Amino acid sequence: MKFHVVTLFPEMFRSVLSGSILGRASDAGHLSVDFVNPRDFALDTHRTVDAPPYGGGPGMVLMVPPLSKAVDSIRNQYPKGEPPPTVLMTPQGVPFNQSDASHLATYDALTLVCGHYEGVDERFVEHCVDFEISVGDFIMTGGEIPAMAVIDAVARLVPRVLGDDQSAEIESFSQGNRGLLDAAVYTKPFEFQGWRVPEVLVSGDHAAINQYRRSSSARKTLERRPDLMEGWSNQRIPDQP
Amino acid sequence: MKFHVVTLFPEMFRSVLSGSILGRASDAGHLSVDFVNPRDFALDTHRTVDAPPYGGGPGMVLMVPPLSKAVDSIRNQYPKGEPPPTVLMTPQGVPFNQSDASHLATYDALTLVCGHYEGVDERFVEHCVDFEISVGDFIMTGGEIPAMAVIDAVARLVPRVLGDDQSAEIESFSQGNRGLLDAAVYTKPFEFQGWRVPEVLVSGDHAAINQYRRSSSARKTLERRPDLMEGWSNQRIPDQP
Repeated sequence: MKFHVVTLFPEMFRSVLSGSILGRASDAGHLSVDFVNPRDFALDTHRTVDAPPYGGGPGMVLMVPPLSKAVDSIRNQYPKGEPPPTVLMTPQGVPFNQSDASHLATYDALTLVCGHYEGVDERFVEHCVDFEISVGDFIMTGGEIPAMAVIDAVARLVPRVLGDDQSAEIESFSQGNRGLLDAAVYTKPFEFQGWRVPEVLVSGDHAAINQYRRSSSARKTLERRPDLMEGWSNQRIPDQP
Repeated sequence: MKFHVVTLFPEMFRSVLSGSILGRASDAGHLSVDFVNPRDFALDTHRTVDAPPYGGGPGMVLMVPPLSKAVDSIRNQYPKGEPPPTVLMTPQGVPFNQSDASHLATYDALTLVCGHYEGVDERFVEHCVDFEISVGDFIMTGGEIPAMAVIDAVARLVPRVLGDDQSAEIESFSQGNRGLLDAAVYTKPFEFQGWRVPEVLVSGDHAAINQYRRSSSARKTLERRPDLMEGWSNQRIPDQP
C-alpha cells in the first residue's frame, strides 16, 4: 500500500515511520510513504504557501494553487480516472473510526493532505478533496500527527504488516469484539505488590475465561462508552471499487 | 509545561518534537518533554517488558513491574503528594476533546504512558493511572502517536507556545466559536481556475462577513456533526487544584 502525504513538514514524519511496526513494514516493502511539499509548487519566488484570510481575522490560510498543484502531481502518476482518493486531515472532517480504517485499507494508494495554520482555502476542499477526516474533537497545530495516526491505523490492517494476523481481529471496535471495548488483560507475574490476577484467568476453564472476558468488555463499554452499545458507527467510506 | 512520556519507543518522538511549532516552543523553553523507557526497569537480564496474556489469546501484554517502576521514577522527582497526573493512552479510554486539552493545559506537568502490543496489564491501570484517554475509535500499533497528539493539542494552549494568542480562541470546538466547527476560510488569489471567493468576503461589510461566517459554521456543523449542536461535550478532567 502506498501513501502520498502532502505536507509542509515532511521531516516531522521521519522518526515515526522508521520506528516500530511501521518501519519494519516499510523495510519489508509492504508499505511505502512518499511526500509532496506544496512549497515546491508555490507560484512566486518567495515560495509563499499561505496568506491572511479574506474578510479579516487571525492566522494564515493555506492557498489553493500550491495545494492543488501538489495533489495534481500525485494524480498524474496514475492512469487517468484511477487516481488515489484525496483525504484532507481537518478538525472539520467526519470523525475517523475503525470502520473507516478498514475501508481505506482496501485502497492500493491514498493521498493524505495535512492542513496547517488557520485552515485551508475552501475552494481546495470543494474541488480537490474526496474525504475530510478528523481524528477527534480537538485542535492540533497541523494535520501531520493526524496523518501519522491514519497511516498507522490503516497500515496495520494491510495483510502482512502486523506479525500476528489474529491480533487485528478481536480488538476494540472490531466486528470480532462486537464493536465493544477490549476486556481487561493480565500477564505475569501473578502477584506484584499484593496485586493479583483474577483467579478465573488461571483456572484453565475456557468457558469461564470467555465468560469473564465478555462481561469485562461489556462492563467497560457500558461504564465509559454507552454510545458504542447503540451501534452508532456507520460505514461512510466505501471500499475500493 | 513539562511532559514525561513513558514509552518503549522514545526515538519515534524525535522528529515530531523538533519540527514546527513544538520545536520552537521547546527551544524557547516554554515546553519540555522527557522520556522514561519501561525497559530500563525490567526485572530480568533480558529486559523483558511483555508476556502472553493469562487465559490465552493472541499478542503480548505489557507487564506491571516495568511500567509501575517507570511511573514511580517520575513521581519521585516531585514533592510527596504533588506528582503530575498519570494518563494512559488507550483505545479503552474516554475520547479526548478540546475541553480535556484545556484542562490538561492547566497542569504544570503530565505523565503520558504509551500502551503497546495487545494492551497493558489491568493492575497497572487500576493502581497507577489517573486518567485513560483515547484519541478516537480506531486502533493504532501503540500509544506513541496518540501521545504526540495530546502533547501537541495541550502544548499549543500553553501561553506563549502559539505566536498569535487570538488563534486558539475562535477555532473549532472552542467556546469562542460556540463549540461549532470553523467557518469556511478563503485567501488570495481571488480567482484560480475559475474558482472564486464568495463576494461578501471582499465587500468590506463587517456585519455581512460575520453573518456569512456564522451561517457557514452552523451549516457545516449541522451537515457533519449535528451531535456538536446538542452540547454533548462535558468537562471530565478537572483543572489543576
